[in-house]
Amino acid sequence: MPSTDRLTRADAEALDAADDLASLREEFVLPEGVVYLDGNSLGALPRRAAERVRDVVDREWGRDLIRSWNQNGWIDLPRRVAGLLAPLIGASADEVAVADSTSVNVFKLLAGGLRLRPGRRVIVSEEANFPTDLYVAQGLARLLGDVELRLVPRDGLGAALGGDVAVLMLTHVDFRTGEIHDLAGLTHAAHEAGAVVLWDLAHSAGAVPVDLDGCEADLAVGCGYKYLNGGPGAPAFAFVARRWHSTLETPLSGWMGHATPFAFGTRYAPAPGVERLLCGTPPVLGLAALECGVETIARAGIEPLRRKSVALTDLFIRLIELECGGHGFALASPREAERRGSQVSLRHPEGHAIVQALAARGVIGDFRTPDILRFGFAPAYLRFADAWDAALALRTVMDNREWRRAEHRQQARVT
Amino acid sequence: MPSTDRLTRADAEALDAADDLASLREEFVLPEGVVYLDGNSLGALPRRAAERVRDVVDREWGRDLIRSWNQNGWIDLPRRVAGLLAPLIGASADEVAVADSTSVNVFKLLAGGLRLRPGRRVIVSEEANFPTDLYVAQGLARLLGDVELRLVPRDGLGAALGGDVAVLMLTHVDFRTGEIHDLAGLTHAAHEAGAVVLWDLAHSAGAVPVDLDGCEADLAVGCGYKYLNGGPGAPAFAFVARRWHSTLETPLSGWMGHATPFAFGTRYAPAPGVERLLCGTPPVLGLAALECGVETIARAGIEPLRRKSVALTDLFIRLIELECGGHGFALASPREAERRGSQVSLRHPEGHAIVQALAARGVIGDFRTPDILRFGFAPAYLRFADAWDAALALRTVMDNREWRRAEHRQQARVT
Repeated sequence: MPSTDRLTRADAEALDAADDLASLREEFVLPEGVVYLDGNSLGALPRRAAERVRDVVDREWGRDLIRSWNQNGWIDLPRRVAGLLAPLIGASADEVAVADSTSVNVFKLLAGGLRLRPGRRVIVSEEANFPTDLYVAQGLARLLGDVELRLVPRDGLGAALGGDVAVLMLTHVDFRTGEIHDLAGLTHAAHEAGAVVLWDLAHSAGAVPVDLDGCEADLAVGCGYKYLNGGPGAPAFAFVARRWHSTLETPLSGWMGHATPFAFGTRYAPAPGVERLLCGTPPVLGLAALECGVETIARAGIEPLRRKSVALTDLFIRLIELECGGHGFALASPREAERRGSQVSLRHPEGHAIVQALAARGVIGDFRTPDILRFGFAPAYLRFADAWDAALALRTVMDNREWRRAEHRQQARVT
Repeated sequence: MPSTDRLTRADAEALDAADDLASLREEFVLPEGVVYLDGNSLGALPRRAAERVRDVVDREWGRDLIRSWNQNGWIDLPRRVAGLLAPLIGASADEVAVADSTSVNVFKLLAGGLRLRPGRRVIVSEEANFPTDLYVAQGLARLLGDVELRLVPRDGLGAALGGDVAVLMLTHVDFRTGEIHDLAGLTHAAHEAGAVVLWDLAHSAGAVPVDLDGCEADLAVGCGYKYLNGGPGAPAFAFVARRWHSTLETPLSGWMGHATPFAFGTRYAPAPGVERLLCGTPPVLGLAALECGVETIARAGIEPLRRKSVALTDLFIRLIELECGGHGFALASPREAERRGSQVSLRHPEGHAIVQALAARGVIGDFRTPDILRFGFAPAYLRFADAWDAALALRTVMDNREWRRAEHRQQARVT
């Protein structure tokens, strides 16, 4: 297919026919008439998760009641999910804890990370980091009084790593643009400066391979409801490299992170290793759904998923360039696939209205201020034909100026 | 019924026939052949929760996907549950936030509570408090470095309230014995000493009326999966009295507690009021189940539920005294109903084996070290006949020394 020629839907269908992962789509529920390009915000429902949650509610909760903690293995759910998840991020099973939200885990690991570097009181992050990570760092800094959160632009990170820096906290894949940070290089730079690194893998886990152990990363968190398909508000995860297991302290020292929670002693004693990061009683419904999501992704394998993700986003970018050339879009994501996560972001001054007009045509992406149209390509369940349909829908929206009507509807609702 | 006479099952059935709340049992799933006296650990499944979770998974997640945050009201779930829950604890809807686990909420409010009393660095609690509350306080104290957790016996609380105390942290209903603290009196004593009070309502909410506003309580947390029937690991709640709304700071300042989370700004600005206590993305499956549990309890009304709870536990204590008199049990719960929560705890040196032998007969209670047999009486779904059946099963276990076999089985499994 020469790059200046139009691509037909048949070309996209041919790519689907040759796709080794094509059958994986059957394992997900996807509504008719929808091209779902928002799996980076909420992953689709795995069919097994629907069955599993039903069984957990009806049989395990309804019939077996309290006995399910042992009999149906509820107490082991965090560990089971961690074991499935670890290979996706280049970790060992015993380096991952599944618990709480990403925000809460950021707090645990930022506080724990500061203690690993006594005397250093600076957290470095970038201005464009996902807000909740910054907010939690600000909350911790305010609580401790003597901690500084140093926010710099992306290209100022190296220069910001002075001798006072305890933790470098970054999100691996930028939530707006999908740009990938050099995890190995920045981890190395932080270590050279005497800091530890906390990586947020929210937009990586399940879509972009991460080699935490290979890069000697220290700490990481991530999200269960995006490319891991764990369901709305799914539990999150935390990673602690094994070399920190005996020293890392969490201030959120709840009973599930105790060495012997059912001894009901009055003194906290941390569980060995990463399980000290468990805090309250595990959220069983959410964990059961997440287990199915992670299992599906882990079974497909992160390398094949990444190859398909790159092919999908490459195709979509090419289609946008071919079909929507004169409509004022700028590519906000890196053009080079190796620097791009599993999303394509475009800039357009009418981005908000365009996203709405696309949704009216059944193409679901999302909008991020000020002008970003985000299209997530979850490789587990999207087809090349979906990328083609989405690009053509975008062209139609622009050719027909349908976003003007969407904008008008929106204004009518506001006033 | 004179108090020294044996009570027959027909006597208990007559109480059920006269029970205004009897039909509420139909709204719960309860397995055949089981007397479930562990609703203080995991409440039974409300039938509506089973339907609702199925709908949330199949339709809202599976079909409507990301649109459900607005279209199906996911974003309002924490507020909706708070509104249902507030009357059960004597609070206004805008004083309650539903989020995270009890442990995480203890951390937020202990840290926030300390800041309300600058210059004071002592947290007072009792040795017998539920361990996770103590562990979290220890984690916070260690993080801050200059905070002392002062643990005293129950009868030493008044004397411990010196001028250095910032927060008095107590659990309203003791998890082992069911003894109720004088919430109004201790709140007043703490205020007299210049401290604020943090109440843990884990074993109160949904079973024992609490009047937080009437008692001028400052802060509270509680659990969703016990008498509120929210399901295993359900989200928990936090209460902040309105007078603290503008000053209370949470160090867990996640994006859902931001004034404008979807503006994606880099600076944290707390939401007005109690919603600043929301932190990460709400756990939708757990919240949906919890909403049904709380709605069921709120509809029944806390006062009728309490009256039935008292009648159930009174009957059970009387039956134990009548039927099991010679078997070495000591009542660990207060004899006076007004000082007792919705459970009856007994002490017996063979407690662990006895609880197992009862379970083999379908009577499910639980055991707490060192020698406590705990029987929770969830008034929403238990019958007076259940109390009779449980007491008679206990008598049979003791008369036949069935606990010896249970003990033997247990040892065989361990070795």
